[in-house]
Amino acid sequence: MFYTIDILGTIAFSISGVLVALNKRMDPFGILIIAFVTAVGGGTLRDVLIGDTPVSWMKNMTYTYVILASTVFAIVFRKKIDYLRTSLLLFDTIGIGLYTVVGVEKGISAGLNPIICVSLGTMSACFGGVIRDILCNEIPVIFRKEIYATACILGGFSYFLIKKLPIDIDLAFVIAGLIVILVRLLAIRFKISLPTLYKEEQ
Amino acid sequence: MFYTIDILGTIAFSISGVLVALNKRMDPFGILIIAFVTAVGGGTLRDVLIGDTPVSWMKNMTYTYVILASTVFAIVFRKKIDYLRTSLLLFDTIGIGLYTVVGVEKGISAGLNPIICVSLGTMSACFGGVIRDILCNEIPVIFRKEIYATACILGGFSYFLIKKLPIDIDLAFVIAGLIVILVRLLAIRFKISLPTLYKEEQ
Amino acid sequence: MFYTIDILGTIAFSISGVLVALNKRMDPFGILIIAFVTAVGGGTLRDVLIGDTPVSWMKNMTYTYVILASTVFAIVFRKKIDYLRTSLLLFDTIGIGLYTVVGVEKGISAGLNPIICVSLGTMSACFGGVIRDILCNEIPVIFRKEIYATACILGGFSYFLIKKLPIDIDLAFVIAGLIVILVRLLAIRFKISLPTLYKEEQ
Repeated sequence: MFYTIDILGTIAFSISGVLVALNKRMDPFGILIIAFVTAVGGGTLRDVLIGDTPVSWMKNMTYTYVILASTVFAIVFRKKIDYLRTSLLLFDTIGIGLYTVVGVEKGISAGLNPIICVSLGTMSACFGGVIRDILCNEIPVIFRKEIYATACILGGFSYFLIKKLPIDIDLAFVIAGLIVILVRLLAIRFKISLPTLYKEEQ
Repeated sequence: MFYTIDILGTIAFSISGVLVALNKRMDPFGILIIAFVTAVGGGTLRDVLIGDTPVSWMKNMTYTYVILASTVFAIVFRKKIDYLRTSLLLFDTIGIGLYTVVGVEKGISAGLNPIICVSLGTMSACFGGVIRDILCNEIPVIFRKEIYATACILGGFSYFLIKKLPIDIDLAFVIAGLIVILVRLLAIRFKISLPTLYKEEQ
Repeated sequence: MFYTIDILGTIAFSISGVLVALNKRMDPFGILIIAFVTAVGGGTLRDVLIGDTPVSWMKNMTYTYVILASTVFAIVFRKKIDYLRTSLLLFDTIGIGLYTVVGVEKGISAGLNPIICVSLGTMSACFGGVIRDILCNEIPVIFRKEIYATACILGGFSYFLIKKLPIDIDLAFVIAGLIVILVRLLAIRFKISLPTLYKEEQ
């Protein structure tokens, strides 16, 4: 289950990378790089920080094949995927939901404090998208005024609570991932964002 | 002593991160991220490069609690801290002074060459601020024409000299850190900077 | 041979870093940092991702001395090096050719899949230049419409083929490096680039 979610997140992020790269009129090779970086960037940072090297995608070729296949798929069906203007947002949101839980679980396996596990989950989820946006010369989604990392943090902590319930671990995975996705989608739908603090304000 | 200096540097860098983020009108969560990245960025790069993983702040929760407390403190007292316009500069300078020595000492513990130890100290001191400035869309302080990394390098090498004197190791720590702080403050006060080299010049 | 190529690549990249930094009117210290980052950036990323830490340049002082000497040399003879306007391009291309093969060979030593080895070679070759360009506020060479990473990938895969021939391993090294250099130079000479894909195109 853990593994399935990781692969689903990889597909979602690859496609979100292809969609951003297509908008930048990149060549096929540039598109593949952006798809790859978006899909593995967060997990690579996570693995390097906890010292789990060589990083995941180097040890397990499934990631590479899945990214290649998703990229070709997204390029071929690019007109249909783009039909819904919200598709990029949707794939990006599914990606952060799935990766958050994977990252938290990796932190737990490494015996780290729950706060650190949630940070790891949030980094796994957000860092790939940040690199994607920087390489494509966009302001990173995470720094635009929107609930984004906050959704990952809420989902990450809720995973710890849900795990204490007498339910299957696989179900706990899915519920925590869905919480991230729901919080983000609801925040966008109802335009909820955190207030800004500024020195001049009284 | 080593540990106390590390925590003091963390406090100084967290506050410097909060001050930059406040100026960018970020929300409380964005401010916390910037404070965190500023405080742990340099040490994280250092730990990853020498292979000391999981990185420090993941193994020792003190950093996280200190950063959280410093961020809340700096946000609450933001009007008072900002009273002196030089406060950001001061906290940033104290931070690089303390982190330089911590980084050099880490390199010595890993059995590395003195030149590499000084590079490690300089990276520990400067990298957090570089990420802070990039994320806040400012030109990194280190690349503005000013004595900055040079102060870290001078302080780092002087630490090796001071250690040879018949004085306490804790005192050597403090003196080397003060050298970094003094060099930077004097350079700013007297507008000292390195000359630029350019091909056209004769 | 492996080692000689690594050092030659370090010299080529250091000089390419100095030439870019000189154009940005940096001070001597800034020039040294850019030369250093250009020369060791790609190899550092490679070593961190496969977990070979402390990274190469920390364990072996030769890199530091070679970069220092190349930087002083390039600064002193800057008017002569710049005489040929193509010099930066040439040094950059020699650098990526040499580093690609070194990176691929490192991946093979770590027992990784050929596709991952070629990715490692390409990263080793391209990442230093990407950081150099980002720090110098230039659009990274790799993202301008040109055959660049593609040359590394072709050279990397050809190294696996050439190794199967009954020739000396040192010769295989040189041939694969020359393939990268030739592909890139020919692509520039004949203005060959990959086509862009865009959603609107039919």
